[in-house]
Amino acid sequence: MERTQYFLDQKKMPTHWYNILPDLPEPLPPVLHPGTGKPVTPDDLTPIFPMALIQQEFSPERYIEIPEEVQSIYRTWRPTVLHRAYRLEKDLDTPAKIFFKYEGTSQAGSHKPNTALAQCYYNKMEGTKRIVTETGAGQWGSALSMAGAMFGVEIKVYMVRISYDQKPYRRILMETWGATCVPSPSKNTKAGRRVLAEDPDCPGSLGLAISEAVEEAASQEETKYSLGSVLNHVMLHQTIIGEETRMQMEMADAYPDIIVGNVGGGSNFAGQFLPWIRDKISGKKPDLRIICVEPEACPSLTKGPYTYDFGDEAGLTPLLKMYTLGHKFIPPPVHAGGLRYHGMSPIICHLYNMGLVEAKAVAQLPTFEAGIKFARTEGIISAPEPCHNLKVAIDEALHCKETGEAKTILIAHSGHGHFDLTSYEAYLQGRLKNYAYPEEEVKKSLASLPKVPQT
Amino acid sequence: MERTQYFLDQKKMPTHWYNILPDLPEPLPPVLHPGTGKPVTPDDLTPIFPMALIQQEFSPERYIEIPEEVQSIYRTWRPTVLHRAYRLEKDLDTPAKIFFKYEGTSQAGSHKPNTALAQCYYNKMEGTKRIVTETGAGQWGSALSMAGAMFGVEIKVYMVRISYDQKPYRRILMETWGATCVPSPSKNTKAGRRVLAEDPDCPGSLGLAISEAVEEAASQEETKYSLGSVLNHVMLHQTIIGEETRMQMEMADAYPDIIVGNVGGGSNFAGQFLPWIRDKISGKKPDLRIICVEPEACPSLTKGPYTYDFGDEAGLTPLLKMYTLGHKFIPPPVHAGGLRYHGMSPIICHLYNMGLVEAKAVAQLPTFEAGIKFARTEGIISAPEPCHNLKVAIDEALHCKETGEAKTILIAHSGHGHFDLTSYEAYLQGRLKNYAYPEEEVKKSLASLPKVPQT
Repeated sequence: MERTQYFLDQKKMPTHWYNILPDLPEPLPPVLHPGTGKPVTPDDLTPIFPMALIQQEFSPERYIEIPEEVQSIYRTWRPTVLHRAYRLEKDLDTPAKIFFKYEGTSQAGSHKPNTALAQCYYNKMEGTKRIVTETGAGQWGSALSMAGAMFGVEIKVYMVRISYDQKPYRRILMETWGATCVPSPSKNTKAGRRVLAEDPDCPGSLGLAISEAVEEAASQEETKYSLGSVLNHVMLHQTIIGEETRMQMEMADAYPDIIVGNVGGGSNFAGQFLPWIRDKISGKKPDLRIICVEPEACPSLTKGPYTYDFGDEAGLTPLLKMYTLGHKFIPPPVHAGGLRYHGMSPIICHLYNMGLVEAKAVAQLPTFEAGIKFARTEGIISAPEPCHNLKVAIDEALHCKETGEAKTILIAHSGHGHFDLTSYEAYLQGRLKNYAYPEEEVKKSLASLPKVPQT
Repeated sequence: MERTQYFLDQKKMPTHWYNILPDLPEPLPPVLHPGTGKPVTPDDLTPIFPMALIQQEFSPERYIEIPEEVQSIYRTWRPTVLHRAYRLEKDLDTPAKIFFKYEGTSQAGSHKPNTALAQCYYNKMEGTKRIVTETGAGQWGSALSMAGAMFGVEIKVYMVRISYDQKPYRRILMETWGATCVPSPSKNTKAGRRVLAEDPDCPGSLGLAISEAVEEAASQEETKYSLGSVLNHVMLHQTIIGEETRMQMEMADAYPDIIVGNVGGGSNFAGQFLPWIRDKISGKKPDLRIICVEPEACPSLTKGPYTYDFGDEAGLTPLLKMYTLGHKFIPPPVHAGGLRYHGMSPIICHLYNMGLVEAKAVAQLPTFEAGIKFARTEGIISAPEPCHNLKVAIDEALHCKETGEAKTILIAHSGHGHFDLTSYEAYLQGRLKNYAYPEEEVKKSLASLPKVPQT
């Protein structure tokens, strides 16, 4: 009997997150204060984050214990399953062994609750009553709403207006979990009012929604802000994925030659590969390939310069050293909304700069083609983001067919596409198109990079 | 550490379905031919079903082996997890222990693939190239579409027009898996053309969609029909749920005092409780309570007579002895579309008639109230159908709080509500209402029961 699922007993669920910072061959470039150009201090961040998360952002500890309160809610759906994709292998007629770690069984349908719960918990411990955040298509907003329900923290989500109007399902999810979801731009904030005065019909943008959320969080008592990707502490919380996978691959008596994941802000893929890259850094598995996949329409790693930039469009955040397309860049409307981000997790950028991970940009149509193949072999309807991994994983598996190598490919699968079905419909009806790399727009956007000392 | 999930290793996954027929204290009343009033023979059914399924429909074997080809696809998501609902228990402050077996992690989001795969397999083995079926809101149609993709059987689904127009997501699911989905009434069949001639804007009904599917299947070569509930062989295929649960409850060192499930055609709940009711029949657990939950708007068990009736509105099927509201009954538009069926699985009806299971009808609003509580404690957004169980399970748990009894309650949870979020929105916005038992409509419908010898 071939075994297609590797469960991990809850008694063996990892009790610690893995922090890559102390294991980096060179230290991470510092986060800079946009006013002074000096490294930010923890105090600079206290208006919007609780101290426990600020400490994790800079922590030198290799392992950080997952609070029992967080573990106990992780256990409502974790450990997630590691799958062996036998049916896909057979369809491709490849000697490669394909595994995927699937985060789509969380109640919110993705990996996002791993950090949403941790962030809610630490906020709760430090007396936060309300957390304000932003969301694009709603993946992060819904995960934080679920976490808020679990810990009794009030959640308010600024959702980009065009998604708020066009994609009601994730808004309803948030409301079902008890959160408040308002379209951005709104009249609640200065930033929103200013934009609405100029254009009452403004469809909104993620950058603006961040501005509204940060402004509200900074100006209200017992209220904090929360971010669903990019920052070090978010990557940290996601390492539960890779820590579980390591044990499950051992159960499968396998070790990956290639790990493939999509990157927007980078949290799902970092959560999977950081626990493995140790072996590459330490020389235990020097030939391990780690492939970050991004859309051709928004190719920060493969096309952007490595420089300091704001994390948000409005320029309210500290400066992060990233491969960036410029914080003013508005990516083309690819359906993988989670990959439409101008920058990238500084940790991933640093590893990419050191040559420890690879990057690859793919066009939209082949990702859906891969998604359809996966749906018709493994059954799972993937979100448009992990369809990017599937495309590259299938290419690698077909390459193995040519060379006859039985490589082991591990896919970081972030979740299902139950709320993205209209994109599949558009693909099946031939209405979907590729978006070329928008070179001119990126040039324009890069012209307004902040002027700061470049390290 | 409290344990909230009971995995079952794939090596221990049941290899046989459990057939209740030989263990019934009294034999099941026969299925009758509507023309002759005599019991149907296997030959009567060969135009629409493959022989293997017909044999299972009447099989005297207690255990029927699950073909390895079916097991191997079951293993892409099975065994499903048994959860302990600690957070709900705590919220209710009840001494009761609440478990739920969750079928929502299947690729189609419900228990339906358990039988869809089996039906596709046996059809494939007997040379069927195409299977035609009907679907209301799309739960069954999408599961069969996924199964068709897995076995390379072409699937055509007649979807009730009003759902086809209003609920595009499940249609897109079907198409993503490669199936063809057409709105019913259609011009493809005599039945459809007749209705369209009278009313070109007819919104359709499940009964009419069945007529179209059966007509097409019976008239085409290498084409069969498939039904997603009610029949004995469908109940049989679903017993994998209860067989797994028995082992998982043993892992939890627990045995249910009360098993709660919703019933439409009855397949999910029968799949859970049939493997347990053996212990009640044999005297090993005589006080086991099994509660079938149905909507007040469509209360076949609690209000209908136990008599012979057609399975479909158009009167094309053999006659089944059921608690029925009459095959002409069109239930009020409760959101639990899977429970809007005039009849009930003959096996469940027979057990209910013998007093071995209980039944309870609940109103719509309290089921959503229960669903919201479950979402905010356990995180899972349940389909409207299992919200019915949650309501009754919560009532039983609160009763335990009054009496101080630490009863063990097992919930048969059929799946998630990702495609039913508009019903949650309507509830949260106060737009949802209860539907009283439509006594007059049922009276009218019962007046056109078929005239056959009543046993």
